[in-house]
Amino acid sequence: MLGSTHGTLTTDSRRARVIACGEPPAPAVHGRPADVDDLDVGGRPLYAAVPDLDRLFRPESVAVVGASDADGRPNTGITRQLLAWAERVGARLHPVHPTRASVFGIPCLPSVAELPGQVDLAVLLVADPLPVVEELAEAKVRFAVAFASGFAETGAAGAAAQARLADAAARSGVRLLGPNTNLNAFEHFRDDLEGPAIALITQSGHQGRPVFALQELGIRLSHWAPTGNEADLESADFISYFAERPEVGAIACYVEGLKDGRSFLLAADRAARRGVPVVAVKVGRTETGARTAASHTGKLTGSDAVVDAAMRQFGVIRVDGLDELQDTAALLARARAPLADGVVVCSISGGTGAHVADLATRAGLRLPVLSEAKQAELHQWIPEYLSVANPVDNGGHPVGDERGRKIIDAILDDPAVGVLICPVTGPFPPLSDRLVQDLVDAAERTDKLVCVVWGSPVGTEPAYREVLLGSSRVATFRTVGNCLAAVRAHLDHHRFVRAYRSPFDEAPRTTSPSFRKARALMRPGEQLSEHAAKQLLRAYGIRVPREQLVTSAAAAVRAAGLVGYPVVMKASGARIAHKTELGLVKIGLTSASQVRDAYRELTEIARYEDVPLDGVLVCQMVERGVEMVVGVTHDDLFGPTVTVGLGGVLVEVLRDTAVRVPPFGEDQARTMLTELRGRALLDGVRGRPPADVDALVEVVLRVQRMALELGGELAELDINPLLVLPQGQGAVALDALAVCR
Amino acid sequence: MLGSTHGTLTTDSRRARVIACGEPPAPAVHGRPADVDDLDVGGRPLYAAVPDLDRLFRPESVAVVGASDADGRPNTGITRQLLAWAERVGARLHPVHPTRASVFGIPCLPSVAELPGQVDLAVLLVADPLPVVEELAEAKVRFAVAFASGFAETGAAGAAAQARLADAAARSGVRLLGPNTNLNAFEHFRDDLEGPAIALITQSGHQGRPVFALQELGIRLSHWAPTGNEADLESADFISYFAERPEVGAIACYVEGLKDGRSFLLAADRAARRGVPVVAVKVGRTETGARTAASHTGKLTGSDAVVDAAMRQFGVIRVDGLDELQDTAALLARARAPLADGVVVCSISGGTGAHVADLATRAGLRLPVLSEAKQAELHQWIPEYLSVANPVDNGGHPVGDERGRKIIDAILDDPAVGVLICPVTGPFPPLSDRLVQDLVDAAERTDKLVCVVWGSPVGTEPAYREVLLGSSRVATFRTVGNCLAAVRAHLDHHRFVRAYRSPFDEAPRTTSPSFRKARALMRPGEQLSEHAAKQLLRAYGIRVPREQLVTSAAAAVRAAGLVGYPVVMKASGARIAHKTELGLVKIGLTSASQVRDAYRELTEIARYEDVPLDGVLVCQMVERGVEMVVGVTHDDLFGPTVTVGLGGVLVEVLRDTAVRVPPFGEDQARTMLTELRGRALLDGVRGRPPADVDALVEVVLRVQRMALELGGELAELDINPLLVLPQGQGAVALDALAVCR
Repeated sequence: MLGSTHGTLTTDSRRARVIACGEPPAPAVHGRPADVDDLDVGGRPLYAAVPDLDRLFRPESVAVVGASDADGRPNTGITRQLLAWAERVGARLHPVHPTRASVFGIPCLPSVAELPGQVDLAVLLVADPLPVVEELAEAKVRFAVAFASGFAETGAAGAAAQARLADAAARSGVRLLGPNTNLNAFEHFRDDLEGPAIALITQSGHQGRPVFALQELGIRLSHWAPTGNEADLESADFISYFAERPEVGAIACYVEGLKDGRSFLLAADRAARRGVPVVAVKVGRTETGARTAASHTGKLTGSDAVVDAAMRQFGVIRVDGLDELQDTAALLARARAPLADGVVVCSISGGTGAHVADLATRAGLRLPVLSEAKQAELHQWIPEYLSVANPVDNGGHPVGDERGRKIIDAILDDPAVGVLICPVTGPFPPLSDRLVQDLVDAAERTDKLVCVVWGSPVGTEPAYREVLLGSSRVATFRTVGNCLAAVRAHLDHHRFVRAYRSPFDEAPRTTSPSFRKARALMRPGEQLSEHAAKQLLRAYGIRVPREQLVTSAAAAVRAAGLVGYPVVMKASGARIAHKTELGLVKIGLTSASQVRDAYRELTEIARYEDVPLDGVLVCQMVERGVEMVVGVTHDDLFGPTVTVGLGGVLVEVLRDTAVRVPPFGEDQARTMLTELRGRALLDGVRGRPPADVDALVEVVLRVQRMALELGGELAELDINPLLVLPQGQGAVALDALAVCR
Repeated sequence: MLGSTHGTLTTDSRRARVIACGEPPAPAVHGRPADVDDLDVGGRPLYAAVPDLDRLFRPESVAVVGASDADGRPNTGITRQLLAWAERVGARLHPVHPTRASVFGIPCLPSVAELPGQVDLAVLLVADPLPVVEELAEAKVRFAVAFASGFAETGAAGAAAQARLADAAARSGVRLLGPNTNLNAFEHFRDDLEGPAIALITQSGHQGRPVFALQELGIRLSHWAPTGNEADLESADFISYFAERPEVGAIACYVEGLKDGRSFLLAADRAARRGVPVVAVKVGRTETGARTAASHTGKLTGSDAVVDAAMRQFGVIRVDGLDELQDTAALLARARAPLADGVVVCSISGGTGAHVADLATRAGLRLPVLSEAKQAELHQWIPEYLSVANPVDNGGHPVGDERGRKIIDAILDDPAVGVLICPVTGPFPPLSDRLVQDLVDAAERTDKLVCVVWGSPVGTEPAYREVLLGSSRVATFRTVGNCLAAVRAHLDHHRFVRAYRSPFDEAPRTTSPSFRKARALMRPGEQLSEHAAKQLLRAYGIRVPREQLVTSAAAAVRAAGLVGYPVVMKASGARIAHKTELGLVKIGLTSASQVRDAYRELTEIARYEDVPLDGVLVCQMVERGVEMVVGVTHDDLFGPTVTVGLGGVLVEVLRDTAVRVPPFGEDQARTMLTELRGRALLDGVRGRPPADVDALVEVVLRVQRMALELGGELAELDINPLLVLPQGQGAVALDALAVCR
């Protein structure tokens, strides 16, 4: 599946703003200066801890608990694999077994307590790893890998056992990989391959197999972390660790569920700061997938839309198929930073050029028209009747002789060009063999990206197997779709990294003065009245209409005079939903008598419908803006999330919304608006003036601040509609719903 | 790119209705009975002519005009290829050259006039084929292939030369392939492969190369038509011809532009009637692609949305990449009709199962939960702790021994299951070699579809190359994405074919009584006034509000009394756009004095804005319905098209519309509504009643009838809004714009 899921990345390099309340900066709480505080206002960490996992992946001494050499035992095969691995890398191996004297000729220790000196890693092949983990503290073992299954993936009892295992690991100081994992970390990695490597993280070992097999195509792999159930070490730990390793060019992940949303964000933030691309398959696009994945590794999958947004915010490149994971990770690991984002397609057939240009444009790539001078240069070698504007149709014959190299060099020499894509739709050895060699040679001479799509379904041709796969500089693909998606991800990644400012650096450490006012309004477990919800907004500097809560017709008339005619009147109470449908809203009231009638009517309807009121709101009537919604909801994985969308009944049907996980800066708040299908409405249509987008962005950021400060106390917030007035006139929350936890 | 572009197909087996006007059936014009008339009401053909192309593809005698054996001439290589081909298939070859005595030892004829007896095919290797084509009539040659380029792809002069060539072919009775084509039709097709074949049509020969190479993977190819510029024979002719050939299981097309929309529809209709799947890449998803393709074969690309709709209407499966074209065409050519649409995913890893189930569900496949009994049966061989509900996690070991075959058979034996997908994510020979062999054996014993995804990027493994590719019954894929897209296309295709009723059978042959009334209202070259446009609608039985056109305030008051208060008043004139923005609409007028004031105001604004009026419309005010738009626009390729969409300013911004190419039946009109993102609005939201969808469908069909009957005379029609009232209450066209050509 193509159509890069990577999304649009802002190129706005203005510094991200997270703190957006109008109030002056608040003093640090607890007397600590804000700049060294490493927790945010909600008490959540702001930086990822990076575990030192060197000795997990490259242990010098390994204990194998439950080692066996008895015929037909599964542990025998595993022990044999570990022995071969230890011999290859020169590690010492200590079999541990309560009754065996030796295993494969190596003397056996009866328990981990007997282990000599420092042991880096214990591989636990026992059915119940808990007692062993408890013993490991004294043995000073630093890492353990637990193979046993039957934990969180099996249900509540298993989850409890897993929690006990995690506790034991925490107490003993050992970092635990698994349970429900395997030996993937100790596979036979090829050490003859050069260049930046892929580091691989998989929650299901088998799913990493094709990425691992890339070594057979000449692509280097440095690590494989099979995280299994993640009782202790989780994917995020490995992302943070790999992002710091100099040999790692890209991190490829197969994720079924995240253990913790926050740690994932922090790890992705660390990779983004370091510029290390993270490419991930995340199961859970559908309910079926989420359910099946949960029963496989026992993890929450969260809302897929939120996962998707979180990944985009922190530059994680999400792909769907393992084939895309391979192709994208391989390209991002190995390609140098692009010198330009212009893509040229060059082929031996006009048809191929037209087709690939079509798909490339749809994939969001930019195919610049080559300059007149460049085209003239290319026509020295390519017949005049062929189009070389881009796509370049070289007609075939020119790339079969010495002109081919000149054509390639001329294209790569163009400063507008950062990427050259040559689709070899069908091999025709007299032409394509030479072309492929010329491309491999050219790639050695340039810092630009050279991609070849080997379109033959056969794949046994020497030009492919020997020449293309033998090059570490040409990026070779088997399908145009995967090539374009990978190139798009590559350009997006570097654009993202260049503009990246970590929102954690500017996330609020301390509460704002708004917080105290807001806190006083909260009613645990209750839905606030519209009036109270609006006071909450007002506390955070979000504009609401002038309004008064009244409890008599006479007071309503007085209020209308103060608020100013025309007015809107609404029944107000703690648990009123569907006010409009029930007839509990009266708009456009222009006189005292209309206000009196409306008061009577509203209270009568409320009595009839048995709706308890705390009064009637008399509000200023605000019109002529764009109706939007802004809200906060809680995600199981990520906590509070902020949503913005178009308002009104039609758009409610169309669900045209964008979501973000805090913390995020102004740049992301603006990007949210570009994700709305109906965003043109904000630009002004049918002669309407453009809406005050700055004010809308400000509201989104103030709502984020509220969500961060109130944390779990605010279960839900829904400003609907937020009327965004014409440019320069602000935005007004006409109605709001707030639910306290 | 996955996410099958095939779209939703209706399973409604009710007979399609195209004639939908309320009037009784009209008598046939010209005195001919409607049932034998083979032209529709617009004079367009209703059935594809199927050319007999047997002797083009399997000629017994071939003239090569411009044959050469001189060193270094391009024609020499082509002549050599043709000689080898002729020898292989046993055809007689006649070199033709004005000056050579012989070519490769075969005596040369000086001109085509000298050709002996019946010659099936002339291959024209000359720069200007026109004079030769003119001579071919007398020589009684049936087919010609023209290699020369420099025709429509080069611009206006080339297009004129191409038209002359087409004329010459028509006069001489020869059917011409090309110009700007090649020898692909006479490649070396393997004759040792069995089963239904793919027939290939490409407008760019090189783009067919990977499909042709499928023969090296054991997939049979029967024909290759490289259509080039299509001066005479076009893709549609080959689709019609291939659909009739018994050896053809599927037709694979690479299309840059269509020569004629109608002939394409008729060919697709023929294939649909015969149940032969057509899988097509159609360039032109983007402007870039459309432009580049046009400069390559000189054809119109039309609106891509219309092309897409036309393909879906007639069951053509559109794909984007050549890899999908190969995989989908190969599956559809070879797989038997599905016995059920339930898909089971069976893998050796729970991770793979979760991932593939996720992607399969998103691809629109149905993964039924296996029955308790079936699960118990599977648990005879698969450990209890593994989930076998579907996806089936077999845990690996069971498929490494005799249990594998039992598991596969048990799944295929389930009547709910039509398709078994086994992803082999990474080969592990002790398990996967046996699994693959068991699947190949099982596929021989069942009529159900067995698919394997060979996930290794290497592809040289014997289990893949020898066992899987050696089977003609297992469908083997290299990516999960392509497998799922192909399976979806396969199930959709058979669902489509089962429900298919050709709309051409019921397309109107003769005009309705509406036509005469409508015709009288047309004003060539003009935009009709709102009032006249509504009369046009009324002629076709589409409801409009009660309204009167008045030219004085007094008449307005009288009209309001007749129409009934409250009324709407609008300025009416031949060229008024943006009435609402100009203030030329007044709604909710409830008294004579308001009507008088409104009349004055409207005429004053019109004077001020310099808008010529033919009067003021006094209309019945209709409220409380769903605003839709229904319209007709002209497509360069397909002629009139019918559009339906949600109305109102928001949805105008969102462009939520669906389009169809006439003729289409009621089933398609209903399917259009399901394609709207905001379709839920018609079901009733926020307590609103469901809308009268039947009435909306009726309007769409009446508009289609109008478009068919008025043909080119109606350049554009836009009913906006069409207010669809609650169920049982109909739909009313509140405003309409009509432009005559």
